[in-house]
Amino acid sequence: MNSDTPVATTAADTPAYNALAQTFQRLYRLGHLQSIAYWDQAANMPPNGNDARSAAQSEMAALLHRMRTDPALRDGLARAEQEPLSDLQRANLREMRRAWRSSNALPEALVQRSQRVSSRCEHAWRMQRPANDWAGFLPNFREVLEVSREEATLLAADLGCSRYDALMDQFEPGMTTAQVDRVFGEVRQWLPGLIRRVVDKQHDEAVLQPVGPFSVPAQRELCERAMRLLGFDFEAGRLDVSTHPFSGGVPEDVRLTTRFRGDEFLVSLMGTVHETGHGRYQQNLPRELLGQPVAQARSMAIHESQSLAFEMQLGSHSGFAGLLAPLVRETLGDQPAFEAGNLHRLLTRVKPGKIRVDADEVTYPAHVILRYEIERALIEGQIEAEDVPALWDEKMAELLGLDTRGDYNNGPMQDVHWPMAMFGYFPCYSLGAMYAAQWFATMRRQQPGLDTDIARGDLAPVFAWLRDKVWLQGSRWETDELSRRASGEVLNPAHFRNHLEARYL
Amino acid sequence: MNSDTPVATTAADTPAYNALAQTFQRLYRLGHLQSIAYWDQAANMPPNGNDARSAAQSEMAALLHRMRTDPALRDGLARAEQEPLSDLQRANLREMRRAWRSSNALPEALVQRSQRVSSRCEHAWRMQRPANDWAGFLPNFREVLEVSREEATLLAADLGCSRYDALMDQFEPGMTTAQVDRVFGEVRQWLPGLIRRVVDKQHDEAVLQPVGPFSVPAQRELCERAMRLLGFDFEAGRLDVSTHPFSGGVPEDVRLTTRFRGDEFLVSLMGTVHETGHGRYQQNLPRELLGQPVAQARSMAIHESQSLAFEMQLGSHSGFAGLLAPLVRETLGDQPAFEAGNLHRLLTRVKPGKIRVDADEVTYPAHVILRYEIERALIEGQIEAEDVPALWDEKMAELLGLDTRGDYNNGPMQDVHWPMAMFGYFPCYSLGAMYAAQWFATMRRQQPGLDTDIARGDLAPVFAWLRDKVWLQGSRWETDELSRRASGEVLNPAHFRNHLEARYL
Repeated sequence: MNSDTPVATTAADTPAYNALAQTFQRLYRLGHLQSIAYWDQAANMPPNGNDARSAAQSEMAALLHRMRTDPALRDGLARAEQEPLSDLQRANLREMRRAWRSSNALPEALVQRSQRVSSRCEHAWRMQRPANDWAGFLPNFREVLEVSREEATLLAADLGCSRYDALMDQFEPGMTTAQVDRVFGEVRQWLPGLIRRVVDKQHDEAVLQPVGPFSVPAQRELCERAMRLLGFDFEAGRLDVSTHPFSGGVPEDVRLTTRFRGDEFLVSLMGTVHETGHGRYQQNLPRELLGQPVAQARSMAIHESQSLAFEMQLGSHSGFAGLLAPLVRETLGDQPAFEAGNLHRLLTRVKPGKIRVDADEVTYPAHVILRYEIERALIEGQIEAEDVPALWDEKMAELLGLDTRGDYNNGPMQDVHWPMAMFGYFPCYSLGAMYAAQWFATMRRQQPGLDTDIARGDLAPVFAWLRDKVWLQGSRWETDELSRRASGEVLNPAHFRNHLEARYL
Repeated sequence: MNSDTPVATTAADTPAYNALAQTFQRLYRLGHLQSIAYWDQAANMPPNGNDARSAAQSEMAALLHRMRTDPALRDGLARAEQEPLSDLQRANLREMRRAWRSSNALPEALVQRSQRVSSRCEHAWRMQRPANDWAGFLPNFREVLEVSREEATLLAADLGCSRYDALMDQFEPGMTTAQVDRVFGEVRQWLPGLIRRVVDKQHDEAVLQPVGPFSVPAQRELCERAMRLLGFDFEAGRLDVSTHPFSGGVPEDVRLTTRFRGDEFLVSLMGTVHETGHGRYQQNLPRELLGQPVAQARSMAIHESQSLAFEMQLGSHSGFAGLLAPLVRETLGDQPAFEAGNLHRLLTRVKPGKIRVDADEVTYPAHVILRYEIERALIEGQIEAEDVPALWDEKMAELLGLDTRGDYNNGPMQDVHWPMAMFGYFPCYSLGAMYAAQWFATMRRQQPGLDTDIARGDLAPVFAWLRDKVWLQGSRWETDELSRRASGEVLNPAHFRNHLEARYL
């Protein structure tokens, strides 16, 4: 995959396609340096390197943008359409066109303005958030919203869809407001009732809290052992520390990050399990086409379906707690809270809270639905930036029964997405959780012994299924077709409901 | 320095110069990503990432090469010569032309062939060296030599000098065989005698050997404290571990590496002191022009003059041993060998040995002179690859009194330079040691209390001198002029001899 071999099997007949494949291979290679430098910025870089790094990354982004908007590509794509391509090449061409389209839809000046206002907003937000300073945040956020609406208008015109749909399409190609409304509308019906029932049921449950402190080297070892249990390939990746954990690097060299606290270990452990799901997807993308768009991860919802398959489907599985328990004891020492049943109770504790990233899998969709409804209305122009807090309070009361009035820090200012103009991403988290439930429902149907296998530490059937149905498929199929081939149907939120009810009631 | 402000002060009058400055700024920014990725490859990268990283770096190298050989640059350089430039701008233009010339002198096909054969030779050498396999090494090395001679021929034609001079010019612009012959010829006269006298003098000296093991975290702390003592800015750099220590990264974010052994700490400590010299030079290059060729380090001999000013002039100074001793005791625990006088005796122990990188400062020039004489004869076509071992043995006997027959591993196969086609670099090490002695001789003349200052821990006068005379000068002056402005004369090896005699006799 690092040779210059074009993808074409009958190279002489497909000159336009071959030229495109070479261009995308070059973009992939240069993107490698971008990814590693981005990871380094988060995990290693001393503070005074920031200006030079940002300048270097902007230069690289501009260079890649020029390559992606080279006028010759339009003609090349048109000519390649007429060539005798294999099905796989045709899928690659479809993905090339999609990448080309999204790079060419926006004028350079608008992209730069968007980067400028979002960078300013995000930078100020880092101080404004802890100061609970919504009034200070609002003027910057209005600018971010304005430029995002302009971008959405242009993208929507290009794609022939609504403005919010056009933004979602960047993360989850083909996903529409109509589909999300159908899915989230259904969840909205049963979720508040389910949360109440689970909280009632857990009310008298005895849960022992782990007693710290937990040394960082011991926690790191625990995380690495959990990653090994989950099949992460340390010959092709690493675990490091960054303020905001993420999965970065490149498929050939996946860089996961986590963060450690001395008084707590489960958040960082399960965060690592989450990133390991992203990481294994990356590590197992189809190698023979690596560098081509068709070999990249399908979409962000599918990416989250892998991280949540690991963190929630597996990680909060009662059998998996039995596998974790000895690792925890061997690295952090023995204590009563580390008994498998108690670990499982800790990992499945449901409690409505204000912070999305701290939420359990039952209340999490409420956080996402609320953000989806607000950001969609913002982008479609039905509400303005100053309307957000009141709507936030109303929906938090309705969905989770919480009073969030005046608490902007733990309310609409809690996420980095809006300050950085990342509208349309939030749905991917819950769509990912639903896909993950659907994958496991399918696996159980096909392999009735699955839960027993998990409990006795045989995770190979889970990984084999995910590798076969998702990882090795890359972007060969559009999302609905990937889902049909993997599970026999498109996204069906009933599996998610069944999963929550089976696990929590 | 990361803004797009051109260097010109009268921007309207210097359009060609401004355009060049922008191009070099872009090259600098993209080079930033190259440097960080190279450091990452040595310090972090898991093994399976290597193919993708190499492909990414080749792509980047090709891209930068295309930018540097853009035909528009030739015209731009010619037009800029006619513009009303300041002295500084004219110096920058001179350095731009030098960079442009060296990129354009060689045809792309030859550069690629050189990379291919040297990469193959170096790769095989990593196994052949420990196996003492000169016969296996020879065919690859012949190819490397052949392509290096071709490159040297083209460069020499371009510059109008001898073939070996043309290769040296890549590392030490303006340096000639005539100059090196004069300097090394002089050293050759007195060095073998001096070595014998020093070895005799030290024969009965009592030196206590430190007793290990030394924990790696404690050694790391020791190295970091020594770096702080030497003024390294950790807000703009890091220390990490790699198999072959080096100073990398970018001036705004300097990445030093070292390696640790459990049974020994002085090699890694003094290696770190050495790299800190390179690092401070980088960290203190003139900021307002950073990104322009004139703001880059002058040359490799001047770079080595900084690392050796730190490692040898300062690091083996009797006063400096008194500063190191408490750091060593505080990090590694107390033991008799850590007394200041004994540390100094350990750091100034002279013993002829086969390995250049393990050599003390007295025998080191012998290693360099031997390599210089052999590689010059190789490049000029006076000898062939198969003649190297006999010459090696002869010169090692003559210069250091050692028998090296049959020991290729610790003989002509010990350095990475020849396998990787890096001919012309070796002289820089000893020229650097000589410049370092010249800088300190000048400092002492100007500041008679210097040695007392060092002994009581006041290193500020040393750093202020180096910053003023070398670091902040960047590439503003050619090497001889830099030397004259700093010390009143061009390179004069008498200072090096005086230094060695004063310290060792």
